[in-house]
Amino acid sequence: MNQVREEMIESVQAQMPEQRWQHTQGVMDTAIRLANKYGADPIKAEAAAILHDVAKYWPTARMEEIIREQHMPPELLQHDKQLWHAPVGAYVAQHEYGIEDKEILDAIRYHTSGRVHMTLLDKIVCLADYIEPGRDFPGVDRIRELAERDVNTALVAGFDSTISFLLAKRRRVFPLTILARNSLIEELEQELYK
Amino acid sequence: MNQVREEMIESVQAQMPEQRWQHTQGVMDTAIRLANKYGADPIKAEAAAILHDVAKYWPTARMEEIIREQHMPPELLQHDKQLWHAPVGAYVAQHEYGIEDKEILDAIRYHTSGRVHMTLLDKIVCLADYIEPGRDFPGVDRIRELAERDVNTALVAGFDSTISFLLAKRRRVFPLTILARNSLIEELEQELYK
Repeated sequence: MNQVREEMIESVQAQMPEQRWQHTQGVMDTAIRLANKYGADPIKAEAAAILHDVAKYWPTARMEEIIREQHMPPELLQHDKQLWHAPVGAYVAQHEYGIEDKEILDAIRYHTSGRVHMTLLDKIVCLADYIEPGRDFPGVDRIRELAERDVNTALVAGFDSTISFLLAKRRRVFPLTILARNSLIEELEQELYK
Repeated sequence: MNQVREEMIESVQAQMPEQRWQHTQGVMDTAIRLANKYGADPIKAEAAAILHDVAKYWPTARMEEIIREQHMPPELLQHDKQLWHAPVGAYVAQHEYGIEDKEILDAIRYHTSGRVHMTLLDKIVCLADYIEPGRDFPGVDRIRELAERDVNTALVAGFDSTISFLLAKRRRVFPLTILARNSLIEELEQELYK
């Protein structure tokens, strides 16, 4: 198992620039820590983190091909290419790295967009991607603080920063991210009235 | 026709507090002005403006009943009640005021949420609702300025103010508003590359 892990790490590292590999290591550490803190499986969290950006530097045309061939949601192609590497990464994780665990694959698939009813593992990988130590964007320290207290609140703040950025840049917002944020707010409201 | 207009005005005015009626008059004036400026039908713009908030002060339970009975999108009921009066208003315009013009009914129906591929009349009524002289919210003057230059840019700024407000209040965002904004940005991009 450890040998598989080492081989996976080596292979993923070879597919990205050094800086992105450093980011991936940050996501691995943060995802393991959050998994231990909030009661998710740290082994799955690490596997998803290792592979989450595996397709990030793949040629656009190859990603588009996979999205079409695998019948992924076609609206992806109408939206920012930054979104493509996540579902393509899940495909690569399954077909090139032999990952069959649905939870790991989903955490990779939805790590950029989020989704309705995110699992704890989805949330942890997505949040780790926002707050790993190498990240530096306006408001990241507040999200880091929130992450120590509540995953849902922190992730809403993460999505808010993405959405605000897109509003300011007059760029389109991926609807699934709004649905993901709405779903998290519902969970927060339900906790409040429990 | 003018008598119908006067009766409609009288009846709508009787269904709302004085302040909301003043708002409605502001939307009427602004919608007529924008319609003349951008080449929409000012008569239809005024009719939609007169009726846009007709259901605003109806009892919540009655609005909910109409949404259910008329098979309006059920997700409305999961979202802010502030959204309900628009589709209910379109129903009232048709069934109590005899408006059969689809353009007017749609402009009422989508004046709060927006929709994908808004018509010019939709845009004008929605924008007039944001910028009529009685409105006072952060950024409204910038939207007023934009409205003198470009309807789409102004309306994107209007939706941005709504979305930013909902993010700041940690409230859910109605997905159709995101789709409406995305659709306007697509139109702006198409104009740019024409």
